[in-house]
Amino acid sequence: MLCSAWNRTAAGFCLPGTALRRDIAPEFARYLIEFPFGDIYSRPGLDLKSREIATIAALAAMGNARPQLEVHIAAALNVGCSRQEIVEVMMQMAVYAGFPAALNGISAAKDVFRHRDAENDARHEG
Amino acid sequence: MLCSAWNRTAAGFCLPGTALRRDIAPEFARYLIEFPFGDIYSRPGLDLKSREIATIAALAAMGNARPQLEVHIAAALNVGCSRQEIVEVMMQMAVYAGFPAALNGISAAKDVFRHRDAENDARHEG
Amino acid sequence: MLCSAWNRTAAGFCLPGTALRRDIAPEFARYLIEFPFGDIYSRPGLDLKSREIATIAALAAMGNARPQLEVHIAAALNVGCSRQEIVEVMMQMAVYAGFPAALNGISAAKDVFRHRDAENDARHEG
Amino acid sequence: MLCSAWNRTAAGFCLPGTALRRDIAPEFARYLIEFPFGDIYSRPGLDLKSREIATIAALAAMGNARPQLEVHIAAALNVGCSRQEIVEVMMQMAVYAGFPAALNGISAAKDVFRHRDAENDARHEG
Amino acid sequence: MLCSAWNRTAAGFCLPGTALRRDIAPEFARYLIEFPFGDIYSRPGLDLKSREIATIAALAAMGNARPQLEVHIAAALNVGCSRQEIVEVMMQMAVYAGFPAALNGISAAKDVFRHRDAENDARHEG
Amino acid sequence: MLCSAWNRTAAGFCLPGTALRRDIAPEFARYLIEFPFGDIYSRPGLDLKSREIATIAALAAMGNARPQLEVHIAAALNVGCSRQEIVEVMMQMAVYAGFPAALNGISAAKDVFRHRDAENDARHEG
Repeated sequence: MLCSAWNRTAAGFCLPGTALRRDIAPEFARYLIEFPFGDIYSRPGLDLKSREIATIAALAAMGNARPQLEVHIAAALNVGCSRQEIVEVMMQMAVYAGFPAALNGISAAKDVFRHRDAENDARHEG
Repeated sequence: MLCSAWNRTAAGFCLPGTALRRDIAPEFARYLIEFPFGDIYSRPGLDLKSREIATIAALAAMGNARPQLEVHIAAALNVGCSRQEIVEVMMQMAVYAGFPAALNGISAAKDVFRHRDAENDARHEG
Repeated sequence: MLCSAWNRTAAGFCLPGTALRRDIAPEFARYLIEFPFGDIYSRPGLDLKSREIATIAALAAMGNARPQLEVHIAAALNVGCSRQEIVEVMMQMAVYAGFPAALNGISAAKDVFRHRDAENDARHEG
Repeated sequence: MLCSAWNRTAAGFCLPGTALRRDIAPEFARYLIEFPFGDIYSRPGLDLKSREIATIAALAAMGNARPQLEVHIAAALNVGCSRQEIVEVMMQMAVYAGFPAALNGISAAKDVFRHRDAENDARHEG
Repeated sequence: MLCSAWNRTAAGFCLPGTALRRDIAPEFARYLIEFPFGDIYSRPGLDLKSREIATIAALAAMGNARPQLEVHIAAALNVGCSRQEIVEVMMQMAVYAGFPAALNGISAAKDVFRHRDAENDARHEG
Repeated sequence: MLCSAWNRTAAGFCLPGTALRRDIAPEFARYLIEFPFGDIYSRPGLDLKSREIATIAALAAMGNARPQLEVHIAAALNVGCSRQEIVEVMMQMAVYAGFPAALNGISAAKDVFRHRDAENDARHEG
């Protein structure tokens, strides 16, 4: 689920786990929860699926935060985006940020999908 | 509707108008229609409202294309986004691209909203 | 002091004023105060002068937030940076973000300095 | 020639003029000449026309330095690029940096071309 | 030739191969060929060598698409750029995008050159 | 000290070593010393500690030059920044460039700190 070292919330978000929290300075881990998740994502004016679409679009367009892009592709799946919808968002970024940004976004999505499939296979065999 | 010199399609998009087409090199105006609108936006895998949310998120996060951001805020309104949803997307960009990007995105949205209100007032008085 | 529509705090920061707060969505104005100023700038681990140097360096290097760059050049002056120190930071950005970013940063600084001089002249004549 | 406040060299470059040099800190004006023009552009391994193509491509793709982009579109014309070649470079940036970057690059080129035409008209009438 | 999983065209371009096409969504692979290569690179107004110079300059300046930068450094060699010309373009990016962008561009070029040399050695020994 | 293949100067800077110099084109290694270090860092108007704070802020905010960010985090330690001050700069970047930039900056800092600790351990055991 690409939440290694994070805790998954009911809503499907990955929040920094204890080890990570210690590692990245405890207060920053608190801000990371309070501002994005406590303040922004919990606001009623926009549904979580649209929020994740906005986030993966922005991260793919900026193209300089691959780990966070993968975390949010996983979060998008968790809040109800289909794989096809995620790939469509990535393809659309070719228009606004160029083909390399779109290709790297598609590549991040494929990595997350493969990771999910491997997790599911492991679970079913277990 | 922030489509000056553009033609509005049934779906609410602004396509480059004749004058603009002449001005920006005719073939490029054709690519501008064919690839983004003919190829990408017309794909069935993602609804138009989600597509516009992805676009305004990306343009606000990159922060270097104010005219296009305004065109797409107007397009987002045209395909069913509420003003509140648009402002929520902009606020959320503070998390991924910083507060200045979010503030400038909110400022672009306010400009489009004001423009719309002025157009509506003019129409009702006319 | 480049704080129009903002309130100046004792520490020299410009916080969004009432009108601005109404205009940019009241909650976002609250976040804008709480996270950057309440959480980050008030932390003891780094002095305010160093914080403003970090901010103007980052905003000049990214080059897509001129209004915020000007607000923070003014804030840097307020917390004890000399004009020369600010220009040195801008010049140094040529190394990491290129000469255009440095030139545009110097131009923003000159605008703020001129604005300050005009304010001071007006005050002394008044 | 879009060299206001700059001096034009034989090779067609705009170098900072005396007034500008005073304004932007004299040493920085010196670096601006020494490193880009003394060190880089004077190197024999790449012709000036290719150098200007590389520069306008990079500035259009980054999209956050419009004044410098215009200066270098003028410089590209001065060292032998045709208007069509410049527009082709801008159009190509749609592939690597997205359509907004390309559109804004084409818009910068059109501004420079118009400025040139006005200068030429003025000269012929004078 | 850094075209693994791509097909090399007569003009030296790497086009997505069958496996890649399946992997990155078949339609996107088609857009990737049609718009950049069918529409843009095939236009008569600018020679292929200048086009590749523009592309590697832009990708090095943006600095967030290393795989595509390497593909286009290889393409630049294929359409007649010398190694020295490519390194000159990268060095010049220090002026417009900073020394880190230039250094990372030079590093990408060195990787491609080494890969080419290894391929040539293997071929001559085979 | 993260200066592998670089020479450390008295002031704590890493300058390109002989092997690196040969590898990245000898003249460019010369520019890399002359302009940033000979011209900019040696200027009297701003102390070295403030210069390194400006540099790590800019590199973390741009987010596309991890190797150079690590070199300058090490340089910041060399010229007197505490680990806490460096982490504070990174955390502050969340405000201006978003949480992913801040997280990646913190991660770069942690890598440098770990590397330093390992070096110190090795030295004390040796």
